[in-house]
Amino acid sequence: MSLLVVGSLAFDDVETPSGRRESILGGSATYFSLAASAFSPVRLVGAVGEDFPLALAEPWKARGIDTAGLEVVKGGRTFRWSGRYAGDMNAAETLRTELNVLGTFQPRIPAAFRSTDFLFLANTHPETQRSVLRQVERPRFVLADTMNLWIEKERPSLLALMGEIDGLLLNDEEARMLSGSRNLIEAGKRILEMGPKVVIVKKGEHGSFLFSTYQFFALPAYPMDRVVDPTGAGDTFAGGLMGSLARSRGVTIGNIKRGMVYGTVTASFTVEMFGTDAIAAMDAKAAEARYEEFLQFVSI
Amino acid sequence: MSLLVVGSLAFDDVETPSGRRESILGGSATYFSLAASAFSPVRLVGAVGEDFPLALAEPWKARGIDTAGLEVVKGGRTFRWSGRYAGDMNAAETLRTELNVLGTFQPRIPAAFRSTDFLFLANTHPETQRSVLRQVERPRFVLADTMNLWIEKERPSLLALMGEIDGLLLNDEEARMLSGSRNLIEAGKRILEMGPKVVIVKKGEHGSFLFSTYQFFALPAYPMDRVVDPTGAGDTFAGGLMGSLARSRGVTIGNIKRGMVYGTVTASFTVEMFGTDAIAAMDAKAAEARYEEFLQFVSI
Repeated sequence: MSLLVVGSLAFDDVETPSGRRESILGGSATYFSLAASAFSPVRLVGAVGEDFPLALAEPWKARGIDTAGLEVVKGGRTFRWSGRYAGDMNAAETLRTELNVLGTFQPRIPAAFRSTDFLFLANTHPETQRSVLRQVERPRFVLADTMNLWIEKERPSLLALMGEIDGLLLNDEEARMLSGSRNLIEAGKRILEMGPKVVIVKKGEHGSFLFSTYQFFALPAYPMDRVVDPTGAGDTFAGGLMGSLARSRGVTIGNIKRGMVYGTVTASFTVEMFGTDAIAAMDAKAAEARYEEFLQFVSI
Repeated sequence: MSLLVVGSLAFDDVETPSGRRESILGGSATYFSLAASAFSPVRLVGAVGEDFPLALAEPWKARGIDTAGLEVVKGGRTFRWSGRYAGDMNAAETLRTELNVLGTFQPRIPAAFRSTDFLFLANTHPETQRSVLRQVERPRFVLADTMNLWIEKERPSLLALMGEIDGLLLNDEEARMLSGSRNLIEAGKRILEMGPKVVIVKKGEHGSFLFSTYQFFALPAYPMDRVVDPTGAGDTFAGGLMGSLARSRGVTIGNIKRGMVYGTVTASFTVEMFGTDAIAAMDAKAAEARYEEFLQFVSI
């Protein structure tokens, strides 16, 4: 089934206890697409500046990533993010953000992408996410990511979005902020009442949590004894989840749970190396092998 | 099979967002015994002062807790702890500790307890834990708890202890401190190399982790939308684990994993009410019902 992602492409400067990299390829749509394409073809919509070498996206075609929605903004510069990780590496310290082309980007969904079964709205202003929904025929399953900035500053827009999507993806601190509860289980229940049918909470090294009307479900993270660079782990998780869902066809709680396992194992590739180095090299076979290994790790 | 715990009995003053309780029954041996006795008879060794009303321990007999090792120290006062929980309640702020009889307590194992299959050495000075090991015939499985104080101040004693036990139980911050690694997986591997065959890391609301030579295993916490009082959750976890292991007889990785599930569900009772109110009312039937429910929660 068809899968569309609307998100960012970026150049990142990253500093972790393992080292430093400058101007490496990043962005939510990038990580998402590289992960999801191990399981399903992906349609990508995003914007870059004229400084973005299109050769970077060339190998994506062989992975089944359709870049027809990649807009090169004339005279624009690509989004840049600088961040640093220390300690347990559960959160990045953002050192600098240059929105550049993202500052004015209004996603235009190509006609060929308007009928899509699965849609991932990567983190951006909730009104921008809503504008995408207005351009597409109702997908079977829409998952949206968000962040603390929109929870604090754009709550009405975010709440409106939450009535229009199927699933909300956010991290534990964001879930606490959005719900006003310090208890994550209570937080999940409250967010469910705000509209989405499923709420998926990312907890970094502590795994992930699924809240649905019917069932709750928790999963530990893949056990990594060395995390080189956590950048993109959340978007990779989303890519593994949505890619495997698109492959599995039916949106059932069982498939969402298995999708979270694929999200978990694909994210474990991303964090092994800087930037997209590891996830770009991951294929379906490597993902399946780690999936089986992970099932052993969580089986009682 | 027989199960012995050597630990503390206490009076606790506890303050949480749900309220305040003063001079309520607490202590590691108390929580451990109440949890373990749902699955197996328990032998308890500990010390109290003359201020401890023995009527408090009277109902324990009906649960199969043998208090022949409960020493009443003449002229002594019972250990007292005051603590406060706030925010996500993952850690207590200790307001006051009065060691009282624990300051000089040297556990004496009654002759009838010296041959015991399973032994839990609750948190205390590692030399005191080692003195217990010298008094008993080699049990089939010895699990020891510890804390940051001994990791920092009594490292050589703790390392000696770790060569003499089968399993070490500690929380995630303690694991990081003991190993010198911020990465919990690396921390677990390093601690395994210090001697114990299994290392079990408690992560509070994030669940627990098992490290063994053969296999790693992770388990989320039981989903609680309201935690009234986390005091004793760790010792309850140990009680559920060791009680179910003593019932299951064979010490296999499979039984340890299932024991961690019992530890998880028994701990979920403890945190529902202040002090020992909920765990003292928990019976095997209630524990089994929640065990089955938890299996659903973690099944993929």
